[in-house]
Amino acid sequence: MSSRITSASLAVGIDMGGTTVKYGVVRGHEILDERPELPTPAFKGPKPLLKELCVRINELRKKHKGIAAVGMGVPGFADITRGYVHELTNVPGWQRVHVSRTLTVGTGLPSYVENDANAMCYAEFLHGAGKGAVNMIAVTLGTGVGGGLILNGALYRGSTYGAGEIGQMGIDHAGRRGEHGNTGALEKYVGNREVTARARELYAKARCRVAAEDCEPRALSAAARRGDPIALKVWDEFTTHLAAGLCSVVWLLNPDRIVIGGGIARAGKLLFDPLKAKMKAQLAESFRSHLKVVPAKFGNDAGIIGSAAVALDLARRR
Amino acid sequence: MSSRITSASLAVGIDMGGTTVKYGVVRGHEILDERPELPTPAFKGPKPLLKELCVRINELRKKHKGIAAVGMGVPGFADITRGYVHELTNVPGWQRVHVSRTLTVGTGLPSYVENDANAMCYAEFLHGAGKGAVNMIAVTLGTGVGGGLILNGALYRGSTYGAGEIGQMGIDHAGRRGEHGNTGALEKYVGNREVTARARELYAKARCRVAAEDCEPRALSAAARRGDPIALKVWDEFTTHLAAGLCSVVWLLNPDRIVIGGGIARAGKLLFDPLKAKMKAQLAESFRSHLKVVPAKFGNDAGIIGSAAVALDLARRR
Repeated sequence: MSSRITSASLAVGIDMGGTTVKYGVVRGHEILDERPELPTPAFKGPKPLLKELCVRINELRKKHKGIAAVGMGVPGFADITRGYVHELTNVPGWQRVHVSRTLTVGTGLPSYVENDANAMCYAEFLHGAGKGAVNMIAVTLGTGVGGGLILNGALYRGSTYGAGEIGQMGIDHAGRRGEHGNTGALEKYVGNREVTARARELYAKARCRVAAEDCEPRALSAAARRGDPIALKVWDEFTTHLAAGLCSVVWLLNPDRIVIGGGIARAGKLLFDPLKAKMKAQLAESFRSHLKVVPAKFGNDAGIIGSAAVALDLARRR
Repeated sequence: MSSRITSASLAVGIDMGGTTVKYGVVRGHEILDERPELPTPAFKGPKPLLKELCVRINELRKKHKGIAAVGMGVPGFADITRGYVHELTNVPGWQRVHVSRTLTVGTGLPSYVENDANAMCYAEFLHGAGKGAVNMIAVTLGTGVGGGLILNGALYRGSTYGAGEIGQMGIDHAGRRGEHGNTGALEKYVGNREVTARARELYAKARCRVAAEDCEPRALSAAARRGDPIALKVWDEFTTHLAAGLCSVVWLLNPDRIVIGGGIARAGKLLFDPLKAKMKAQLAESFRSHLKVVPAKFGNDAGIIGSAAVALDLARRR
C-alpha cells in the first residue's frame, strides 16, 4: 500500500534526549509548529512518555491537516525495520520498547524510530549543509562524538543499525581506554569533558588560576581568539585528533562531504581552518580534491527536522 | 539495451599486477580456462599490453562461445563509469588510459575496469567467504594492505572510486609517517616489509643470528608455532595493530562479515584466534554478535574471478 506521501506532506518530528523531548510539525526543512519541550526524567519510562506524545500529536493533527507520519529520534540504536529500541543506555527504563507500534496505535499514523545522529545526518543531507552530496559523513561534537553516514544518496545503517560510531574509532592503538574496552577512541580525545580536563591540566601546569568555566570549550575558543597560548594549544591538539579520526573515515569511505555539528562546531574558522589544513596534508589528491568539510546548517532543530524526514521517507516506501 | 547476460554467461577476467597479468575464462566461481600469465614490464605501457590482451581474448572466444564481457582488475583507482584509469602508481606508463574503450574496440565485447581489491572483494562476496553477507569488508594483507567494501549487498566505491583504503587508516595519530603525509597508517605496522623489519630488529636486540628469510612472514609463522618467543612477540604486535584498524572499520560500518586474504592470512589460527579475541574485547555487543571474521576462500584466483564477475554485473545493468 502506498501512503500517498508528497513533497507537501507534513510529519511530526520528535527529538528525544536524556533531559528533554522536543517535537514539532515539520514541512521540508521548516518547523511549522514547535511545541514546548517535555522533561524526559519526569516520565517514568517509555509507556507514559509515549502516551503523552500520542496525546500531543493528536492535538497537533486537529490544527495541521496534512500530517502523514511520525518520526522519533532516540539517543541509541534503533531497529528501524521493527520500530524497536533494544536499550537506551542513558535513559532509565528504556529497554525493549516497541516505539513505532505504540505511536501508531495511539495516533493511527505510520510511525518510525531512528537513531538521533542518523536523523541529524538526514536533515543536513536533505535540507542543510549536505545538500547535493552523494556520500556524506555527519559528525556531532559534544560530550560524545556521534556520526551518521549517507552513502550513495541514502542513509547507511549497518548490519545491526549501529553504523556511524565515529567517536569509538581509534586514533591511538595504545591510547586511552574507552567504555567498550577499546583503546584510543576519538571521543576520549575530543569530547567536551576531555577538552575541559586537558585545559585544566595545562593551566594548572602553567600555574595559571582560571575559573572552572574558563576551561569549557566555549570559553576556550574565546581565549584562543585573544591569543591565549594555553587555549591555542588545547585547540591545536583538538584539531590534530579530530583530523586523525576524520582522515581514517575519508580513506575508508571516500566521501564528498563532511558536515560537522554540535557545540564545538560553533567555533567556526578557529576549528575549520586548521582542521581542513591538517586533513589536506594527510590525504591523497583524489581523496581531498572532491571533499568539502563544512559546518552543519541546523543546530538544535536538526533532530526534529531529520526525524520527520526519515518518517516521510520510510512511509513513502512502505 | 540489455545484453542478455544470464547465470550461464562467461566472461574473461584479467588480473593485472605490477609484475604479471593473469587472465582466464570464468563461469561463476570457476576458471574454465586460465592462460599463462604475461609479464607486465615486458610491455612498454598500456597500448601494447591492451593490444596483446585483445588478441588473446579473441583467441579464447573461438574456443568458448558464451563469453559476454571482459573485466580487468588494476592495482589502483579505476573510474568504472568511464572505464578509465587516471594513474597506476606502481606501473610505469599507465597514465590517462581508456581501458574499457580499448578492450571493447579490440574485442567487440562490453569491457570494464575495476580496482583489484574491489574485484577480489566481489569474488569473495559472490562465490567465496563472503557468501550470504549483507555488509562485508574485504582486507588483503601483503606489502600493502588493501580493502574492498560491500554495503547493502553492493560494491561501494566512494565519490572518486577510492573507497576501501583500509591500509591508510590511522591507528596512531602521532605514529609513523605514511606516503601521503598521514600518520600511523595501518599499512606501516602490518605490511610485510614492516613485519620483517620488526622481526629483524627484535632478533638483533636479542643477539640472535637469523637468516634474512627467517624474518619473512611465512618463516615467522612457522617459528611462532614452534614457540619462538620473538616470532610470538612479532605476531602479537601484528594482531594488536590489525585488530585496532579493523575495530575502527567495524565501529564505522557495523558489518556482518570481514574476509581476510593475502599471504599472511594463510597463517590460519595463529592469526585469526588472537585477532578475533582482541577485536571482541574492544567492541560493543551489538557490533560483535553478528560479526564473522573469516579467511578468504580464493587465493590468487580472486582477481580473475572477481574482475569477470564485476564485468558481468555491469554488463547486465547497461
